Amino acid sequence: MAEAATARRSRITPEREAELYEAVLDLLREVGYDALTMDAVAARTRSSKATLYRQWGGKAELVVKAIRHNKPGKDVGKVDTGSLRGDFHALMAHADDAEMEQNSALMRGLAMAMHANPDLHREFRSQIVEPEIAEFRRVLQRAVDRGEVRPDCPALDFVVHMMLGAFVTCTILDERPPTRAFLTSYIDAVVLPALGVPVN
Amino acid sequence: MAEAATARRSRITPEREAELYEAVLDLLREVGYDALTMDAVAARTRSSKATLYRQWGGKAELVVKAIRHNKPGKDVGKVDTGSLRGDFHALMAHADDAEMEQNSALMRGLAMAMHANPDLHREFRSQIVEPEIAEFRRVLQRAVDRGEVRPDCPALDFVVHMMLGAFVTCTILDERPPTRAFLTSYIDAVVLPALGVPVN
Repeated sequence: MAEAATARRSRITPEREAELYEAVLDLLREVGYDALTMDAVAARTRSSKATLYRQWGGKAELVVKAIRHNKPGKDVGKVDTGSLRGDFHALMAHADDAEMEQNSALMRGLAMAMHANPDLHREFRSQIVEPEIAEFRRVLQRAVDRGEVRPDCPALDFVVHMMLGAFVTCTILDERPPTRAFLTSYIDAVVLPALGVPVN
Repeated sequence: MAEAATARRSRITPEREAELYEAVLDLLREVGYDALTMDAVAARTRSSKATLYRQWGGKAELVVKAIRHNKPGKDVGKVDTGSLRGDFHALMAHADDAEMEQNSALMRGLAMAMHANPDLHREFRSQIVEPEIAEFRRVLQRAVDRGEVRPDCPALDFVVHMMLGAFVTCTILDERPPTRAFLTSYIDAVVLPALGVPVN
């Protein structure tokens, strides 16, 4: 299955793939998930619908791959500064305020579409949420291995809830997408103290 | 203005008001905010539309009042156990799992409607979010006054983010509404340690 996907993917260049994903995200911002059609993607990118379906399988897969491709911080796993605070701050350094503002509206629209589209929900979960959780687990495991966090620290089970919660509730409570400054303060004020990691 | 509202409100009995709010929430669950009409509320509750408008002013106000009336934990301010952990746990004791499951779907639908209806967003903010934040602040201020939490503890600014985040992300990550057990563990694992309050 993975080999088949690689074979399919190799038919287009990385540049062409990036261009295609950008067009999908533009369309998503313009019309939303429900109104986005493979016809529109084909027209906008001057591809054939057959190619799109052969390459990605369907709308949900194409949209989720486009988001994954464009996501800031997709190199979470490569960050390794030697301390948990350093790792978290380095992860936030990838975050760009303007990009987060743009993505916040996009993700809100997508969150709504997920409730009505189980295939989108499934793709999003397996392609974005689960890999993200796995990366966070690796960062945290290193902190446990270094002795920074106790292996039985109960907050370890809630780190993804805390981080995702900061994103979502900033939008709800403060009526604006999170900024890098907000997320960094939140990490120092909430996440690290909950994990028992001294901030100063 | 407040007196006028009281005068208007006093024309119906508390029992009739509760019955009306229940009918509004039933309709909201059945058809969602956008499809809910004052005509349908009037028909369902055998009231005149004129009465509904005179009493509540409009759909957004009526819906938000109905949610506020039905909200579990609306007596947050009355909880005073003598310790922050006791207060938080007492607040969670009001939470009913079946009710949270029911409300979770309702709130998700409403969150979507808010983006398209600024009047609903405004009412929700002033009638639900702000009073809730004020109540939390009182509970936290008492903990500061007792010396349980340092007045300059940076996590104080994020308590509402943490609590709301637990609700929202549980739904997203675990694909189920929060249970009382989940929220209680989250308080002990995240909120109290972030505030520097020992759990054991």
